[in-house]
Amino acid sequence: MDLSIGLFDSGFGGLTVMREVAQILPQENLIYLGDTARLPYGNKSPETILQFAKENSAFLLKQKIKLLIVACHTACAHSLKALQEELPIPVIGVIAPSLALIQPFKKVAVLATTSTIESGIYQQRSSLTKIYAKACPLFVPLIEEGLAQHPSMQLIAQSYLEPLIGKVDAVLLACTHYPLIRATLEGLFGPEIPILEPAKLTAELARAYLSNKGLLNEQTTKPTYTFYVTDNPEKFRKLGEPFFGAYLERVEKIDLL
Amino acid sequence: MDLSIGLFDSGFGGLTVMREVAQILPQENLIYLGDTARLPYGNKSPETILQFAKENSAFLLKQKIKLLIVACHTACAHSLKALQEELPIPVIGVIAPSLALIQPFKKVAVLATTSTIESGIYQQRSSLTKIYAKACPLFVPLIEEGLAQHPSMQLIAQSYLEPLIGKVDAVLLACTHYPLIRATLEGLFGPEIPILEPAKLTAELARAYLSNKGLLNEQTTKPTYTFYVTDNPEKFRKLGEPFFGAYLERVEKIDLL
Repeated sequence: MDLSIGLFDSGFGGLTVMREVAQILPQENLIYLGDTARLPYGNKSPETILQFAKENSAFLLKQKIKLLIVACHTACAHSLKALQEELPIPVIGVIAPSLALIQPFKKVAVLATTSTIESGIYQQRSSLTKIYAKACPLFVPLIEEGLAQHPSMQLIAQSYLEPLIGKVDAVLLACTHYPLIRATLEGLFGPEIPILEPAKLTAELARAYLSNKGLLNEQTTKPTYTFYVTDNPEKFRKLGEPFFGAYLERVEKIDLL
Repeated sequence: MDLSIGLFDSGFGGLTVMREVAQILPQENLIYLGDTARLPYGNKSPETILQFAKENSAFLLKQKIKLLIVACHTACAHSLKALQEELPIPVIGVIAPSLALIQPFKKVAVLATTSTIESGIYQQRSSLTKIYAKACPLFVPLIEEGLAQHPSMQLIAQSYLEPLIGKVDAVLLACTHYPLIRATLEGLFGPEIPILEPAKLTAELARAYLSNKGLLNEQTTKPTYTFYVTDNPEKFRKLGEPFFGAYLERVEKIDLL
């Protein structure tokens, strides 16, 4: 079935998920929405995030998608249940695969936005692993400004994470932007501590779902990747390219409202 | 690292998981324990199941394993937390991947043993999907007696599942034995209803864990697959072969106590 898979995030963090989806499902057409005009999401209220998530989903639904991937932990924490109930198509988030991923570890640092941490979702739903939750509110704004490799990122990461170093046996990147500062985090926690991210497993879940439902795209033509943003498409193309791992051909600015 | 991965189940149901592990991690040595002398687990008390799970794990630990997969939902429901706390190696279960798998569906029939259903674990931990929990206490004994394809299985399945037919949009096999009666269940629920099982995703989690920890076996010699049982090894070899998908070369009877 040649309908697309839709993904959204507040900015270009969700491209780290889209990249894995493109790899694991190379025949699928993908449509991405980065709500760059209203980012970051992670320091806003649950009600506002829910409203943004509904608007993003409504836009993607109009593009004829068969599956929605909420490629943003903050949006998942506050909207997944509502989207699941209200949308006529299935919805996959990044939190359930993250919970599966941390299962074999005893003590995991969960790094996320303030809003994800305050939702308490990881603390409540992790039944086996002890969670060391840490809000890192400046990571997304710095990354979205192209400062992932800037010395200020190193200093801020250090001040956020110092108290956790040596205390955990793994680190979960519970924000789809954070893979972009993976090297910094590896440097801080040390080579013995695995840095976990749910992008690949989320893509595996999408494949399992489509395969189970007989909805895989069986056409062999090259798939199309379309990117919509709510602000500056040129900035998105430039900053997003290294994280998607390929040139972003079609980037279009849209007006959600 | 050439240490093995250990798996246990009450009987040969867990071979459906081991088969996927062998496929996804073809270089790993695998050790399986089927506690056939004490099966079925699913109608026993939580305390007894916990004790069995600890004894099985202690045996596998002695075989020098680097990772334990509890390939049995009943044992997971009642022992995963304790094993995780007490064992010096990481433990992966089948419930977290199952929860990830059902996420995109609205109404899922969860078929399991009485003990798994009574634990309430799926009802409590599924935050998005409405769970229709159904205990199917005779499935494991019938399967372990080689009657998966017998007409009595069809009749019993029908009497258990009739009330759920037409009510759900997917079926989760929340017992590692049930993939062996997949065709019967597909026939009952109809071709539109996906039948979900967590074996493949569990194997993906094992791969993610070993890869993240740098513990993958990098030797290229043929891996060894060893099967231990607590009762009749010949019966296990004969009934288990079709479900592992290959001849069970080394099957050895052991005494756990």
